[in-house]
Amino acid sequence: MTDKVAIREVGLRDGLQLITTQLSTEQKLIWVEKQIKAGFREMEVTSFVPPKLLPQFSDATEMIALSNKFKNFTPTAIVLNKKGAERAITAGTKKITFVLSASEKHNQANVRCSTDESLMKFKQITNLSYTKNQKINIAGAIATSFGCSMQGSINENRVLELASVMLDAGACEIILADTVGYANPTQVKSLFSKLKSHIGKCTMAAHFHDTRAMGLANVVSALEAGVRHFDTTLAGLGGCPFAPGASGNIATEDCVYMLENMGFNTGINFKELLEVRNYLAEILPEETLEGKLSVAKPAINSTTG
Amino acid sequence: MTDKVAIREVGLRDGLQLITTQLSTEQKLIWVEKQIKAGFREMEVTSFVPPKLLPQFSDATEMIALSNKFKNFTPTAIVLNKKGAERAITAGTKKITFVLSASEKHNQANVRCSTDESLMKFKQITNLSYTKNQKINIAGAIATSFGCSMQGSINENRVLELASVMLDAGACEIILADTVGYANPTQVKSLFSKLKSHIGKCTMAAHFHDTRAMGLANVVSALEAGVRHFDTTLAGLGGCPFAPGASGNIATEDCVYMLENMGFNTGINFKELLEVRNYLAEILPEETLEGKLSVAKPAINSTTG
Repeated sequence: MTDKVAIREVGLRDGLQLITTQLSTEQKLIWVEKQIKAGFREMEVTSFVPPKLLPQFSDATEMIALSNKFKNFTPTAIVLNKKGAERAITAGTKKITFVLSASEKHNQANVRCSTDESLMKFKQITNLSYTKNQKINIAGAIATSFGCSMQGSINENRVLELASVMLDAGACEIILADTVGYANPTQVKSLFSKLKSHIGKCTMAAHFHDTRAMGLANVVSALEAGVRHFDTTLAGLGGCPFAPGASGNIATEDCVYMLENMGFNTGINFKELLEVRNYLAEILPEETLEGKLSVAKPAINSTTG
Repeated sequence: MTDKVAIREVGLRDGLQLITTQLSTEQKLIWVEKQIKAGFREMEVTSFVPPKLLPQFSDATEMIALSNKFKNFTPTAIVLNKKGAERAITAGTKKITFVLSASEKHNQANVRCSTDESLMKFKQITNLSYTKNQKINIAGAIATSFGCSMQGSINENRVLELASVMLDAGACEIILADTVGYANPTQVKSLFSKLKSHIGKCTMAAHFHDTRAMGLANVVSALEAGVRHFDTTLAGLGGCPFAPGASGNIATEDCVYMLENMGFNTGINFKELLEVRNYLAEILPEETLEGKLSVAKPAINSTTG
């Protein structure tokens, strides 16, 4: 297992979504720049949701325009519907992540329509990107792929069906997201192994939360099923709206440290990464920063130096 | 993977070793009793080290005598040398865990002799248990099996050699311990897979710390290599003397939750287990209790109920 593994930092979106500190566009761009310096090639930098709902992302258009200026770097943005996609495309977004939920209840709560209606919107958006004659990559993210705190278990076949429809409609990537931290390693291995036979030349990515301590254990299982793309947040930023006080996403630094020490190549400079974390501590003084490597420091024989 | 997995709670030893709160024998026994009620069949209840060095274990003899009264339950104790073993045997200990370090530097720092000298002591102790005509099971624990904060990398062959000598001398079990949280999943799978070919009918057990966030990920890899016995501490008690503020052992509740949801049978009642954790919060008010399941609570579709 000496493959390359790609880490997409989603702290600027999933990490900021629930916190009260409002970062300025300038602070966000310094964060992006520092993370690029540490070796990142893709970051989810914003979300095209109505600014009234999430003021944190009211600078979505500027974030895309300014992040697009960095070389060898792909800034991505979340969209949930056609209007968001139109705003994203107008802003010049090169890669869009469309999110729907495998759980009907969660989809209704999140975007007030059924999952099938969301699928229709996904198709409209892929058509839209053709119409505008812009080359836009569209990833399909399936939230609550491993369970839902409103609905409970999620049928594996439903997740695979949603993935297939999105792949047929032109998705470049399928992201299975464990939105509420329900996934366990057995389940992760099973679902990604099945997805692998549908994925073709497209990318399969995993988005895990550490709510129930299984985040990195799930990464190990996903690796075994062939996943080489992971979403993480620096300092484990982001929480779970359904479990106040619980942990958020898996921490970028802990995940990178594990992967490098397992023999994978992430292309990330670990020391630079911890420097970005120091910057976060500076601009987010009131937030709880998670992640164990900043406390324990790398082992003296670590491959991360 | 629907096998049984045995969890040995080591909080009363590894968990208490570094903390300043001195528990009474009565408090410790209530802890043992509650944990038995939750389904535990083996606990490391004390350490026969000189009481001057670790006053926390000055009641070692009483702890063994009183814990021996519980039915279908094996209280175990740590010993580091012949004198400790004599005290343990006199106290009526039915199962002893002898600890030596794969790292020469760590062994010198811990017990002031070379690892080979510790191996000699292990043989003396197995002889001693025959001489006294008592049936005593002796487990061999190899500290720093995956790396050492003083020495760095540890040679796999040295660990396997130490295990072989202890097995030949009569060890009933080999415990590979990641004393300072250096292990990664690739390494864990490799070393336990090799140990498996030496272990015969004896038990192989894993003792992981979560210092660098890989604790449960290492459990997943150990399971794949065939390990079915794990040491854990409730609330992740215990720290790392070489990394102040860092996490300690893997948390019993998080490990049990993961195993049960992966389809393994631990025989542990999860609700009762969280009750024991509440008791710890009561008797150790000044200690930081880790573990994510007490905050996030089980998923609504969890097999732990």
